[in-house]
Amino acid sequence: MATWSAPGKVFLFGEHAVVYGKPGVAMAIKPRVFVTVRKSRSPTRPKSPYIDECFKRMGVRGSVYVNSQLQSSSGLGSSAAVTVATLSAINDEFGIGRTRDEIAEIAFTIEKKVQNGRASPTDTYVCANGGMVLITGTSKRRLPPQSLQLVVGNTLVPHSTAKMVELVGTLQRKHPDIADPILDAIGAVTLAALHNINNPKVLGQCMDTNNALLEALGVGHPASSKLVLAARASGAYGAKITGAGGGGCIIALCPRRAKSRVAGAIEACEGKAIITTIDTDGARKEKHD
Amino acid sequence: MATWSAPGKVFLFGEHAVVYGKPGVAMAIKPRVFVTVRKSRSPTRPKSPYIDECFKRMGVRGSVYVNSQLQSSSGLGSSAAVTVATLSAINDEFGIGRTRDEIAEIAFTIEKKVQNGRASPTDTYVCANGGMVLITGTSKRRLPPQSLQLVVGNTLVPHSTAKMVELVGTLQRKHPDIADPILDAIGAVTLAALHNINNPKVLGQCMDTNNALLEALGVGHPASSKLVLAARASGAYGAKITGAGGGGCIIALCPRRAKSRVAGAIEACEGKAIITTIDTDGARKEKHD
Repeated sequence: MATWSAPGKVFLFGEHAVVYGKPGVAMAIKPRVFVTVRKSRSPTRPKSPYIDECFKRMGVRGSVYVNSQLQSSSGLGSSAAVTVATLSAINDEFGIGRTRDEIAEIAFTIEKKVQNGRASPTDTYVCANGGMVLITGTSKRRLPPQSLQLVVGNTLVPHSTAKMVELVGTLQRKHPDIADPILDAIGAVTLAALHNINNPKVLGQCMDTNNALLEALGVGHPASSKLVLAARASGAYGAKITGAGGGGCIIALCPRRAKSRVAGAIEACEGKAIITTIDTDGARKEKHD
Repeated sequence: MATWSAPGKVFLFGEHAVVYGKPGVAMAIKPRVFVTVRKSRSPTRPKSPYIDECFKRMGVRGSVYVNSQLQSSSGLGSSAAVTVATLSAINDEFGIGRTRDEIAEIAFTIEKKVQNGRASPTDTYVCANGGMVLITGTSKRRLPPQSLQLVVGNTLVPHSTAKMVELVGTLQRKHPDIADPILDAIGAVTLAALHNINNPKVLGQCMDTNNALLEALGVGHPASSKLVLAARASGAYGAKITGAGGGGCIIALCPRRAKSRVAGAIEACEGKAIITTIDTDGARKEKHD
């Protein structure tokens, strides 16, 4: 029996714009997804196309137990975390010998298959490796980890990443005169943020600007706007949608002692708050009996 | 004794971006400012630098009575309306014979002087001529008037146009990589809006996009964000900051029968609502005894 875990992820900057070759910054966050795999002749496992595909790709059969602290479909990379943790646990339990990079790669092909061709290699890379990552085009560069004090606010409004990516794509095709400069501005904000990574005040302003640009792209939602305003009003340095938008989650960068207050403000606005910070570990072995 | 009136104005699209040569659309709105001027040997008049300057420029002395339904410093062009109406009434009472265009021009030089060099020729032009106007650089073109159903929401948060124009100027100098594409996108949204002037749904979306881009420029304010969200949630096609931002007013484009509801939602969020529409008249003679 092998138990592995993998962290969730947020986009600090640049979601949607990364699809168009602009830079973006993603970060692994607590909480984690835990997956236990056991060799078994009569496999029992949760009905998940991701997990089915993991066993198929690794060419083995077994039982699985999943313990996730990450709400699915909230834009926190839960499917990537489940896939990476499952592959890691299978790899360990059956002594298959894949490297971490290989597992991230296989996880991406699985996400792509299950999500009908639409998947971000960012999610699986960040879940597998942990820490902060700068994405530009197909290249990924690990950044020095920063101890950012974050509060995630889940609007609990279901959203579809594929639909939001399509919506921005439609705007870009129909109105490149509107969409292209917005995507350029998002790229510039991401770079400005990287230059101010140690200055939470400026970093917060960059998040606010990025949020407005995401709303200009059309991926805002009344519920996320409400949580963003509540977070700012209760002391956050800045707040923005994280992930595809159209519902889903927001993140707020907070002074350490304002985190509880910001979380409370989010909960008062019908959101679900998670106080969190960077997870520098990626996929990690929890135990092996 | 001569009584003249002049309308207020809103920016439908493109405020701030017009300063950088992008197109913008402004519109005269009800309510109006009424100014009565009377020849008098012992002039009594309100202590207003605008009105003082009007008499000086026209080279006469007289008494003035102002009845304004426009809150001053709210971004609805009240100083331009007072100046245009005062000049028009002086012109009439003393038989000076200036044309409407000349009055708009003099009013602009007065605004520029009183506001220490910072004034928009848009405000005085729209107040003098009424209707809808497309501004590009120094050129102004009257557009066919549209019967747009608007609700103005005043945040009652005092703001300074000069300060907001300066703030955008600072961003543009320090971060042209961020500001320039945002200004380009605002220009493109204004043109898209003009192509859809008869389609209130699309026009509303353009207003939403324009609002997000204004927030990205840094001229948003929690109070205006709240009114914008309230207007949208209560049935507006779209809503945005109008004018310089950082407080001041918002406008919401509404279905005719949703106007009261939108106004109520704005008032419920501590804003002051004005249900209004285009004023196709500019400076207008009210009576002459």
